[in-house]
Amino acid sequence: MRSKNQPRRRTRVPMWSGARAVATRPASAAVSGGEGARPGAEEGGLVSSESVLAPGSHPLTRAEENALLHDYEQRVKGAFARIVPALKSIAARQHDESLATWAQEVARRELGFDLPHDLLDDAWVDRLDMRALFAHATFATFESVSRDYFERDPLDTRRRAEAFQTFLLECGFHAMSVTPCSDGRLAHTISYVLRLPMGAVRRKSYAGAMFDVEEAIQRWESTELGRFRTGRPNLADEPTRYLKVVAYHYSSRDPAHQGCAAHGSDTRRAAEAGLEQLRAFRRAVENSHCCGASIEVLLMGIDTDTDRLRVHLPDAAGEADLDRFLDAGALYRESGQLDPGAARALIAERVATPLGGATPPAPGMQRLIARLIENNLSQIDYVLTYQGAHYSDAGHEERFIGVGTDFEEVQLRNLTYFAFMRTLEEGAPNLDVGIQIFRRRNVAHGLPIPIVLRFEYWGQVPGARARAIQRCERVAGAIARRYPDLAERGLLHTYWTVRDSARDAPVECVGGSLTGGGQGA
Amino acid sequence: MRSKNQPRRRTRVPMWSGARAVATRPASAAVSGGEGARPGAEEGGLVSSESVLAPGSHPLTRAEENALLHDYEQRVKGAFARIVPALKSIAARQHDESLATWAQEVARRELGFDLPHDLLDDAWVDRLDMRALFAHATFATFESVSRDYFERDPLDTRRRAEAFQTFLLECGFHAMSVTPCSDGRLAHTISYVLRLPMGAVRRKSYAGAMFDVEEAIQRWESTELGRFRTGRPNLADEPTRYLKVVAYHYSSRDPAHQGCAAHGSDTRRAAEAGLEQLRAFRRAVENSHCCGASIEVLLMGIDTDTDRLRVHLPDAAGEADLDRFLDAGALYRESGQLDPGAARALIAERVATPLGGATPPAPGMQRLIARLIENNLSQIDYVLTYQGAHYSDAGHEERFIGVGTDFEEVQLRNLTYFAFMRTLEEGAPNLDVGIQIFRRRNVAHGLPIPIVLRFEYWGQVPGARARAIQRCERVAGAIARRYPDLAERGLLHTYWTVRDSARDAPVECVGGSLTGGGQGA
Repeated sequence: MRSKNQPRRRTRVPMWSGARAVATRPASAAVSGGEGARPGAEEGGLVSSESVLAPGSHPLTRAEENALLHDYEQRVKGAFARIVPALKSIAARQHDESLATWAQEVARRELGFDLPHDLLDDAWVDRLDMRALFAHATFATFESVSRDYFERDPLDTRRRAEAFQTFLLECGFHAMSVTPCSDGRLAHTISYVLRLPMGAVRRKSYAGAMFDVEEAIQRWESTELGRFRTGRPNLADEPTRYLKVVAYHYSSRDPAHQGCAAHGSDTRRAAEAGLEQLRAFRRAVENSHCCGASIEVLLMGIDTDTDRLRVHLPDAAGEADLDRFLDAGALYRESGQLDPGAARALIAERVATPLGGATPPAPGMQRLIARLIENNLSQIDYVLTYQGAHYSDAGHEERFIGVGTDFEEVQLRNLTYFAFMRTLEEGAPNLDVGIQIFRRRNVAHGLPIPIVLRFEYWGQVPGARARAIQRCERVAGAIARRYPDLAERGLLHTYWTVRDSARDAPVECVGGSLTGGGQGA
Repeated sequence: MRSKNQPRRRTRVPMWSGARAVATRPASAAVSGGEGARPGAEEGGLVSSESVLAPGSHPLTRAEENALLHDYEQRVKGAFARIVPALKSIAARQHDESLATWAQEVARRELGFDLPHDLLDDAWVDRLDMRALFAHATFATFESVSRDYFERDPLDTRRRAEAFQTFLLECGFHAMSVTPCSDGRLAHTISYVLRLPMGAVRRKSYAGAMFDVEEAIQRWESTELGRFRTGRPNLADEPTRYLKVVAYHYSSRDPAHQGCAAHGSDTRRAAEAGLEQLRAFRRAVENSHCCGASIEVLLMGIDTDTDRLRVHLPDAAGEADLDRFLDAGALYRESGQLDPGAARALIAERVATPLGGATPPAPGMQRLIARLIENNLSQIDYVLTYQGAHYSDAGHEERFIGVGTDFEEVQLRNLTYFAFMRTLEEGAPNLDVGIQIFRRRNVAHGLPIPIVLRFEYWGQVPGARARAIQRCERVAGAIARRYPDLAERGLLHTYWTVRDSARDAPVECVGGSLTGGGQGA
């Protein structure tokens, strides 16, 4: 989550971030290149003036994959970007007698869907309800993106999921659950930053990456019981473990303002809090289940300006070190001139030989970390190629707020502000931040805040779908009561969706504020 | 839950309730005695004018146990009953100069605790804040009852728990979870009506006994994982099952008004809904876990006027029949003149040979049902002995509202209106009913509504206690916002408690509205 500008706040010294950072070297705000890092290449951009490496040319970069991902990002963001121009052109002719026919033509051609007839037909009486049209267009675009994701699998997730599951087992892990921050700039963590297939990896986003320990224990118990009962993904007596990953985030360009708001834009505090939560989860499993029950944990950080990854190397006992991490950005530069085999070998060597004589991670963990770093090199090149030295959208550019459980189909940066919740009573502080962002971004320009609700259910459980729909209604009602100034003026609209998580089902819309309540409930 | 009087509502024909009821015999509103039932002995009272059995004299009644339970009930209810007289006597002398000293003496002598000094000291300025004193006294009495329960084990629960766990395993069940309605008249279901030890049996009260299927699945998963991992209470490959019981309720004296409010005081609807929920849970387990995963279910009903039990006999496949049940009240009469051995044999025979040639329950289930019926005979005699033909408190006599997770220490009838919830957003409809009851019972007389909050946590999970306290604060805040007319006038007070459910810990008070917020948070 991003903090607002707070000019009076003390600027923190960023944590050490060299390729092989170690706390014994003095850190400063200006220079924080680690061993092997080229001077001047830190923090600002990955390709320094001294670098001879052209963007997109790292030997381990998968160019085709980058092209595919970029095409997808352009397509989805383009669809949302076309909404305002199309509606503007319609607004300009709103009192035209042939508005209804003509506007539908524009909508179909430019946006790919129809606008609600009644809104167009009634425009002559007063004027077009542009707020409702905007909300409708946002929801219809979302619906189309969502359907495409589940029906067409545009990121080739399913095919890759099986291979990655096998790789994960070889590394000694039978499950991998990643918690990034719910900040929109982290929404692409799985598919882009880490280049992992959803499905084989679970995502649980929380503000400040502070995941719910009780919920995590339930997921762990459910996973372990599955191994005992069904032998999936492997038998319970195989010595593999459940892996929980926390990905905190920071900003290399403006660490004191554009870091994680939940931790006051303090990179070290964000990392510490993540590590503490991982330790709490591990201790909870160890204390409440005997016979050597435990999990593996992994702490990483993501620079939201460049998407480069840092991995805090766990020692042989699995204990991460806040001050000792590998930085993919530095490794990108160090290995840029090597051939692919040598570059891979360099990464493997760095993972295996922590500085300062620390004990290295277990071999399976080394393999996984090396894979994550190699994957991230492609993403570093992705950003360099399509964005330059850093992302241009440092601010919030989200198109809608997501509320509820995870939106699997949202895999793009800065598309959605996500507020995890089962009830608004618990999730309100999270949503308040999102509403503030959208007050500036939308309401200040007269546009409404589009909120998509999502509750998943287990289709095999009788009555579960009806309960998910009821939850949509309940949370939507609570949202309208919490922000009456917006809801009553048509400046806040909700769109209710549910999804059967037991099968690979598409999303189902079950109502919303534009349709005046529930459908199919 | 009890319905308000609804004179216009159609009076339903009560479900068949003979000793061996079967739907093929015609039922009527006036006569519903089953085979073996004496005419006229039905519905109104268990000891008819023709009966020669004196109250308390059934051969299987455990008289000593009844005396112990009665003593406990008298003690606890007596402590609450002394509050109003003591406060009245203090109110009468509230402008006496020596009030503070004298009132504390009364409080210590009559109630066993001190009153808040500041309230007494400030009385001269205006007058005594009797509402705050009443709330304080209620909470202090509750605290003392609660401490006594966890420290002294007055119902001898711990000793009996182990024996019952063994018996349960012999019957083929490794866990037993009972869901009664959250109506205060069912709060004594486990310890009194069924005479089971808490601990060996879990209680999950819900309005209308409509338990949360998703939560039930989590409990089941957690239990099964425990068997796989730790072999407790038995190894996972032993062919025992998890038993889920629903206890709906009805009123034999006034079935159309004093039944379960959540089901419109319709006995058949209450039973049907309970059976449907049990089937949903079983289907959910079967569908979501392969390899023959399943549970056993049992449906029973309780007459809130006499505490007599009816058990719907499951057939060999575990399927309960809505229209075929054994009534402990009828068996009480039928076996009253026999010696203990013969009485037991009669019960066993009736459980083993359902009318109409239906297949009998599995042998272990037969044994458990026979035990429950035998236990219930003592309770039938308990009511006959101490209350007469039926309870005199047909109306609500609860002393406080309980909100949150289960209050293990509440084992008495009509002491607590309980509203299960994790958030008020989900639990509001449940609490609204309780607030309505207490508006009539307390507010109409100028007294406040005392609400005790309870959230359990798992002490082995780092941070869990702090999160439970935070939940108390959040729910208490939401309650104050939902009923501002009460909260602002001192007519609603909350008392926040948490409990470590991982060990047999007493309850801990962490704040409340009288102390102006959190303590020890």
